[in-house]
Amino acid sequence: VPPFAERAAAAIAATGPLCVGVDPSPSLLAAWGLPDDAGGLRTFGARCIEALAGTVPALKPQVAFFERRGSAGIAVLESLLRDAKDAGLLVVADAKRGDIGSTAQAYADAWLRGPLAADAVTATPYLGLGALGPLIDAAHATGRGVLVVVASSNPEGREVQEATTRGGATVEARLLADIGELNRQGAGGAVGAVVGATRGPPAGGAGGLAAFLGAVGGLLLAPGVGAQGATPGDVAALFAGCPPGSVLPSVSRALLEGGPAGLRDAAGRLRDELARALR
Amino acid sequence: VPPFAERAAAAIAATGPLCVGVDPSPSLLAAWGLPDDAGGLRTFGARCIEALAGTVPALKPQVAFFERRGSAGIAVLESLLRDAKDAGLLVVADAKRGDIGSTAQAYADAWLRGPLAADAVTATPYLGLGALGPLIDAAHATGRGVLVVVASSNPEGREVQEATTRGGATVEARLLADIGELNRQGAGGAVGAVVGATRGPPAGGAGGLAAFLGAVGGLLLAPGVGAQGATPGDVAALFAGCPPGSVLPSVSRALLEGGPAGLRDAAGRLRDELARALR
Repeated sequence: VPPFAERAAAAIAATGPLCVGVDPSPSLLAAWGLPDDAGGLRTFGARCIEALAGTVPALKPQVAFFERRGSAGIAVLESLLRDAKDAGLLVVADAKRGDIGSTAQAYADAWLRGPLAADAVTATPYLGLGALGPLIDAAHATGRGVLVVVASSNPEGREVQEATTRGGATVEARLLADIGELNRQGAGGAVGAVVGATRGPPAGGAGGLAAFLGAVGGLLLAPGVGAQGATPGDVAALFAGCPPGSVLPSVSRALLEGGPAGLRDAAGRLRDELARALR
Repeated sequence: VPPFAERAAAAIAATGPLCVGVDPSPSLLAAWGLPDDAGGLRTFGARCIEALAGTVPALKPQVAFFERRGSAGIAVLESLLRDAKDAGLLVVADAKRGDIGSTAQAYADAWLRGPLAADAVTATPYLGLGALGPLIDAAHATGRGVLVVVASSNPEGREVQEATTRGGATVEARLLADIGELNRQGAGGAVGAVVGATRGPPAGGAGGLAAFLGAVGGLLLAPGVGAQGATPGDVAALFAGCPPGSVLPSVSRALLEGGPAGLRDAAGRLRDELARALR
């Protein structure tokens, strides 16, 4: 199996640097004229795949909006994952899961091997990067990815993410360094990082995160483009030192709120704008 | 609606201080002679409810073990949540969810209002306690709880949880202080904390967390009793300054691996041991 970082880079090279978040929130379902139920979720997902296959390399369904409908919503997500794959899209399940031991193993079984297997799953590191070992091992074995949430796009996240670890680095810098080490030591690109595109230069100066970002050796997923305020120029500045094909900006509301009709064209324009900025 | 902290304290006063984790891992399903499928999950949950209703105040299903089976597993969890409630048990959904904005709202809809509504849900604070606002608001409005993972029982968690925030406090101390403040400022006991029972006295001396723990004003869930190594005495020492009825130790593997036959008696003995230690 080719490592996930290679598969992602190939998809980005072939189609362009844009991931679209499939976020069927109550307000977006209403804007699309769809009912707020499992049927509405199903139609929303199908229209996203129809509009976006071939136009962008990847979709990122936000699991919470499916979980909101319980088992009926998760059944819709299962179909969406299969259909997106059949349409040639990479799929990142935005689940932000994280736990320890046999529970981390169960999340690996769910999101990397089982009925909900996606190309990659997002994970939260509050219990330590080491606790995500079962997810990382499963990703490595299957050519899939674990994208660890490192620096979020919201201001409330700064307190934890910029706290100082025993060695003197911030939590976010430490995580990026450790992820790079994991990829070099055998994970081979299975581990990526989620770094909010609105993150901007860190408090310690623009150089603070740059060296670590460039050495991650896995996919860098950058949500926060559009509605949350980041421009293609912001993305290019934040990831200036990163290898080609390693940065995947993600947009959701800003594209989706226009409805399904113009989605393909709008996504294509933003993809091209990002490609120029990241060149 | 009575606040969650009051409901939990009343249940602990009536039945005793023990929560049992419903963790149908592949190895526990095998130990119980059950198949590793949705039917096995269903039987496992039903036997836990049958053995434990009236013996302990609360169950804590680990969501990952249900998610492992996709929508079929989540459907089993929906039934388990209803059946446990009908049997008079409080239920904490151990989901460790966490996200921002409309996504945090969707998790609140799922776990505190919708088809998966439990008495409380665990949440992860990596994106900041403030990002959990929609969950906390929903919990407060419905008499339910959000239990924020603050200090975990695994060693890999120490790096993030003991990092130093800008104000000089550790991440875990800062979170406990902020949770106490939220409960005093209007959340009224809807927010609790998950503090691993194996946590032991913090690096900065035994007094480090004690003052914060005693002032949380919400339920303190303490996993890690038994298989992970904490004794009733460890629990009593860690939570020495906390009000009666605010501490709920949680055990899983150590009780469950004995199989369903002796579960009620074993749980009753551990509950009594914990009651004596916490007196």
